[in-house]
Amino acid sequence: MRKIAILGFGTVGTGAVESFYYHKDLIEKRAGETDIKYILDIRDFPESPYKDKVIHDFSLIENDPEIAVAAELMGGTNPALDFTKRLLKKGISVVTSNKELVARHGAELISLAKANGCSYLFEASTGGAIPIIRTLGDSLSANVIYKIQGILNGTTNFILTKMLEEQMTFSDALKLAQDLGYAEKDPTDDISGADSARKICILASLAFGKHIKPEWVRTVGIDRVTKEDMAYAESIGAKIKLVAVASKEPDSEKIFITVEPHLVCNNHQLSVVSDVFNAVMVDASSAGRLMFYGRGAGKLPTASAVLTDVCAALTADGSLNNDVWEDCEEDIIIKTDGQEGLPILE
Amino acid sequence: MRKIAILGFGTVGTGAVESFYYHKDLIEKRAGETDIKYILDIRDFPESPYKDKVIHDFSLIENDPEIAVAAELMGGTNPALDFTKRLLKKGISVVTSNKELVARHGAELISLAKANGCSYLFEASTGGAIPIIRTLGDSLSANVIYKIQGILNGTTNFILTKMLEEQMTFSDALKLAQDLGYAEKDPTDDISGADSARKICILASLAFGKHIKPEWVRTVGIDRVTKEDMAYAESIGAKIKLVAVASKEPDSEKIFITVEPHLVCNNHQLSVVSDVFNAVMVDASSAGRLMFYGRGAGKLPTASAVLTDVCAALTADGSLNNDVWEDCEEDIIIKTDGQEGLPILE
Repeated sequence: MRKIAILGFGTVGTGAVESFYYHKDLIEKRAGETDIKYILDIRDFPESPYKDKVIHDFSLIENDPEIAVAAELMGGTNPALDFTKRLLKKGISVVTSNKELVARHGAELISLAKANGCSYLFEASTGGAIPIIRTLGDSLSANVIYKIQGILNGTTNFILTKMLEEQMTFSDALKLAQDLGYAEKDPTDDISGADSARKICILASLAFGKHIKPEWVRTVGIDRVTKEDMAYAESIGAKIKLVAVASKEPDSEKIFITVEPHLVCNNHQLSVVSDVFNAVMVDASSAGRLMFYGRGAGKLPTASAVLTDVCAALTADGSLNNDVWEDCEEDIIIKTDGQEGLPILE
Repeated sequence: MRKIAILGFGTVGTGAVESFYYHKDLIEKRAGETDIKYILDIRDFPESPYKDKVIHDFSLIENDPEIAVAAELMGGTNPALDFTKRLLKKGISVVTSNKELVARHGAELISLAKANGCSYLFEASTGGAIPIIRTLGDSLSANVIYKIQGILNGTTNFILTKMLEEQMTFSDALKLAQDLGYAEKDPTDDISGADSARKICILASLAFGKHIKPEWVRTVGIDRVTKEDMAYAESIGAKIKLVAVASKEPDSEKIFITVEPHLVCNNHQLSVVSDVFNAVMVDASSAGRLMFYGRGAGKLPTASAVLTDVCAALTADGSLNNDVWEDCEEDIIIKTDGQEGLPILE
């Protein structure tokens, strides 16, 4: 039987395990008989119904020939990067929700998977439950992608929605997001735009076939957006949203990429994306304009993406990584000076 | 070299051929070296740059071991059904835009493909460029689908948009749609809801794993929608849209399926879907609510879907049909009497 290992038993890991057992019939109908054999974490979970699967020694997974797929749901770079490389080198597919790792080391890990006949899949890294990774990778094969615009961070979108609809201040809205569990105690990565920058890098790398790094992205957070800015936006028939944009002119190698608050006009599709929802808009040569909308985070939506990748990896005979990301230098990025006022999406 | 045959050189066929050569580098990077070897049509095209590929004898395709994939873009049942069966029996994958054939004979053709180690793919049959077929088939593996709501016919959505925004009568809006090439000379299949009924059957069959037939769908067209209805909708903060709905209660085998004009409230995601655009909203157990939006028809958007399937079929070693559709009887359908007034989407 081809079995599964879960790396990390936090919120996402718990969601993946619970959702796996809730949907086991469905998953086995798709992917054949399977089970979760190990859950790796540094902690013990004596109250968990899955406590017997919990292990602390990574080498058990690495050296178990029954393990076909590992779901890396730990986050961060260490030890996730080391574990991922060791698994891929053994021919064990890795699926992940770890946007930091994919954004920083995607090219290397995809190539490593391909070289070892297994897969490195990351549907859960960007857009939560929205199947945008598979769409860019597989479902737009015969398209040149011109542009991607996305609301990629649910926390900031929730805060901006509350500031608009309930006239909250930034700090009150942030506090509410923390109370509801949407924002971390240290919300810097969300608020500063760093989380969105990682995600637009993943989408841009997939769309353009070059590995675009987060530190190259012009990134402006939402912490300086005021109630007055919101009122001004409303007075001109717009909303303020934190939008990530990546574009490439046809016949040019240069890429424009940014994360910053935008004025989004009310007739623009992204203007109706509220609360913790995410959306990704894609402009492509044949398909034209497409939009994908759904829950950008949360235990079950993320589990949906993780388990979709697990099913894909279990049924694949070889690597599912269709496209490698070429290495490239920062001079591929079009540099722009900060402009007066917010950019507008009409 | 694994080569491609195009069956039918009308609007969709021409779009597929032109888009193939425009994107040939991209397609070959994905799917390996390939080419279009034959274009089957009853007509000659002496002015076409592809005239040398045009043939009239189907058996050339069927008996050519170089052909790995055929794109059936003829529409209708005859001879499309016969051709499709003969190709699949030879192990040649078939991709299609033919919603009528998929809605009526999908279960049989999917099983036939599976039995012969090839694929029957139909991304282009529903939702134009929106990759909704692959999403329901592959990207929501670990979800129970509860409900699908869609605006699946661009022609009727265009007509209703013009009636709303420019206060046109139904017949003036229909005439404009015909003048712009959005509606056929005989627009019955669009206006009556029959086209939407076929498409919601395809989506429901994929989502619920049972082959739902178009004649079981309660289908009401848009020809009785008046300017007064539009004005009434506007007065209560809603729009009138032709919406297809399919749903299944958890733990029930019964399916509700309908195509009819709905009052769609202005805060509902489907209310912003205008003109010839389509959208599909999916409610699923883990992913929650997802929406997919894009061009529902047209030469290039349809070509995008056709060529995505061609790439998938060219790279597959076996059948890509993950799920068969079980045969079922009409008593699976929940019957409802027509109600007073339009159903509401809030």
